[in-house]
Amino acid sequence: MPPRLANRMSHIAPFEVMEIQSLARELEGLGHDVIHMEIGEPDFPTPSPIVDAAMRALGGDMMRYTSACGMSDLRALIAAHYLSRFGVTVDPERIIVCAGASAALLLAFGVLLNSGDEVLLADPGYPCNRHFVRAMDGVPVSIAVGADSRYQLTAAHVARHWTPRTVATLLASPSNPTGTVVSLPALQKIYDETTTRGGTLIVDEIYQGLTYDGEPTTALSIAQKENIFVVNSFSKYFQMTGWRLGWLVVPPAYTRQVETLAQNLFISASAPAQYAAKAAFLPATLTILEARRAELRERRDFLVPALRALGFQIPLIPEGAFYIYADVSKVATDSFQLSRDILREAHVAITPGRDFGQHEPEKHIRFAYTQPIARLQEAVNRIGAVLEKTK
Amino acid sequence: MPPRLANRMSHIAPFEVMEIQSLARELEGLGHDVIHMEIGEPDFPTPSPIVDAAMRALGGDMMRYTSACGMSDLRALIAAHYLSRFGVTVDPERIIVCAGASAALLLAFGVLLNSGDEVLLADPGYPCNRHFVRAMDGVPVSIAVGADSRYQLTAAHVARHWTPRTVATLLASPSNPTGTVVSLPALQKIYDETTTRGGTLIVDEIYQGLTYDGEPTTALSIAQKENIFVVNSFSKYFQMTGWRLGWLVVPPAYTRQVETLAQNLFISASAPAQYAAKAAFLPATLTILEARRAELRERRDFLVPALRALGFQIPLIPEGAFYIYADVSKVATDSFQLSRDILREAHVAITPGRDFGQHEPEKHIRFAYTQPIARLQEAVNRIGAVLEKTK
Repeated sequence: MPPRLANRMSHIAPFEVMEIQSLARELEGLGHDVIHMEIGEPDFPTPSPIVDAAMRALGGDMMRYTSACGMSDLRALIAAHYLSRFGVTVDPERIIVCAGASAALLLAFGVLLNSGDEVLLADPGYPCNRHFVRAMDGVPVSIAVGADSRYQLTAAHVARHWTPRTVATLLASPSNPTGTVVSLPALQKIYDETTTRGGTLIVDEIYQGLTYDGEPTTALSIAQKENIFVVNSFSKYFQMTGWRLGWLVVPPAYTRQVETLAQNLFISASAPAQYAAKAAFLPATLTILEARRAELRERRDFLVPALRALGFQIPLIPEGAFYIYADVSKVATDSFQLSRDILREAHVAITPGRDFGQHEPEKHIRFAYTQPIARLQEAVNRIGAVLEKTK
Repeated sequence: MPPRLANRMSHIAPFEVMEIQSLARELEGLGHDVIHMEIGEPDFPTPSPIVDAAMRALGGDMMRYTSACGMSDLRALIAAHYLSRFGVTVDPERIIVCAGASAALLLAFGVLLNSGDEVLLADPGYPCNRHFVRAMDGVPVSIAVGADSRYQLTAAHVARHWTPRTVATLLASPSNPTGTVVSLPALQKIYDETTTRGGTLIVDEIYQGLTYDGEPTTALSIAQKENIFVVNSFSKYFQMTGWRLGWLVVPPAYTRQVETLAQNLFISASAPAQYAAKAAFLPATLTILEARRAELRERRDFLVPALRALGFQIPLIPEGAFYIYADVSKVATDSFQLSRDILREAHVAITPGRDFGQHEPEKHIRFAYTQPIARLQEAVNRIGAVLEKTK
């Protein structure tokens, strides 16, 4: 045991999926063919125009520290993207480019939270979100959500769980692990409920662009868009995970403070990644990304009914991201055990619910459809055979 | 003013040098030739073997999330570097690769500090260091140091300033802004003084390799190397600033906790940067870097006497980094005003002492010798002319 450990560390858990990944690597070491559906990472390579832009920059430019808020032309391109894709005007001064949604959340909570301040968030949810709150000595208030609210917070949740110590509501849309989206009218109500109590709304849009039943939206479409924090990333839709680049849209009143914190915590985001990301909005890139989005939709449309046929309960079709959050109660009593069994016997890696919160984790499992349909079919066949045996 | 602001933000200041840089850009916009000696960034491009390695990786590999602690072969290469260059064995498991020394300090303080915990550090010092402590709600205790202790903390400082709330001592060797080095015997005494009080020693070695009067050293040479945290970076000696990559060496008792925090705060460091950094230890790269180190030594040996001749007091020769911390009392009463005057009239950008702490900042100024000697000569001539006029 370490001789001294900050209290926050007793609340910050390692990813459960790491145990699954270790076991998967062990099996691969033994020569087994493991189908990976456990990781929150697209299986597509970074689109070639993005990679080409990085290579051109590496060949010609010095990779120096950039401005703490990011290269100004990249910030302008992000603003232009909000206008062309979503029809909303966002002042580039509000856009802080940083090392992924991770850094964006650290900045947002860093300027907002004092020790003991509470933040409302949905359970199940992306585990790091509550850990970022802990990192800044805040208290994440995880609110159990189910299919009845599309696994999202509602204005009623906010009203019910608000206390004198609550300072912010965090939404994720589309959500990890459930893939559900908060509609703009619902978001407006949550905004109202939060801000009438003096709170701040933060919307995590890291899976923006990956929606399959209509066009993507942004929380920045609401009338009070100047008052909200929006977290985004080049990782998922733009398929730049390993580059570690994202951005934070901050209310104008916070730009100076967020810049100061970014200067001090990060100096700047990766220069090669920023050069690369300037090609993310090119028509050639967007054509590739939209084709991949169509492919992801096909995978979802294949996998949801196939898993249901195996006995997994999926109460609603996930509209976005690349996840299916399934209820395993009809096939097993403990999702963690089930995920290990499926990995050991079927060589399919999936993430147990335990990574996503305290609300019925033992009943749930997350499938990432980050494999081509042929592999998904193979996974379904293998899982079916395992479940058949245990019947 | 923002409607809600975390208390920590009242202690985290923007870099003063940004005002100097804005003014410099303004002058450049008017067509003036500004000599930049204000930034803590080498003027050399990243060595070509490092850039080439990145380009090869971009051409062939997918840029995915890596392990939270970094690519295992890169961690092994860093360990091998400790052995070949410094003769010390460091278990690669202790080495956490992350987004620069910035991320390393965030991890170290993140696992160590509770609200109100005090950390001892030298004033003058790199401003972010105290701000990282604030980010984690700790209290930086800035200890005034002068030429009498080579601008470094001593064991006596630690003894004198330790309180029941003190938990750690942070050293930076070579130091920014003073360029001085803590000898291993002095470091051993500081270690003893810190640990007998139950505290933790953190050593920032971000300028390691850039020393000019003898071979570089590492704090990991002390007998109790297993108990200390060491911060390092690919930015300065390896000249990879914009890539944002560094590492933290952690005591074995903390590896699991630091990995957990790194997973949650960062997911992983930049993949392109990690591929690039694998070429940082190649003989071809080290040959380039050692030639540049010799060039930096020449610059230092030119600039120290040249500045002294202008009336700047430099009580001791800085052994490392690429900075000269000069006392301006004989030429001006306010270093901030002086740095603005020199920029406006001589078009030479330098950093006022205010960026480095509270101990006599008005009397000091930092010159970065990140320009070729011809430019340094030109800067000296221009500054001399300005000082002559004001006599």
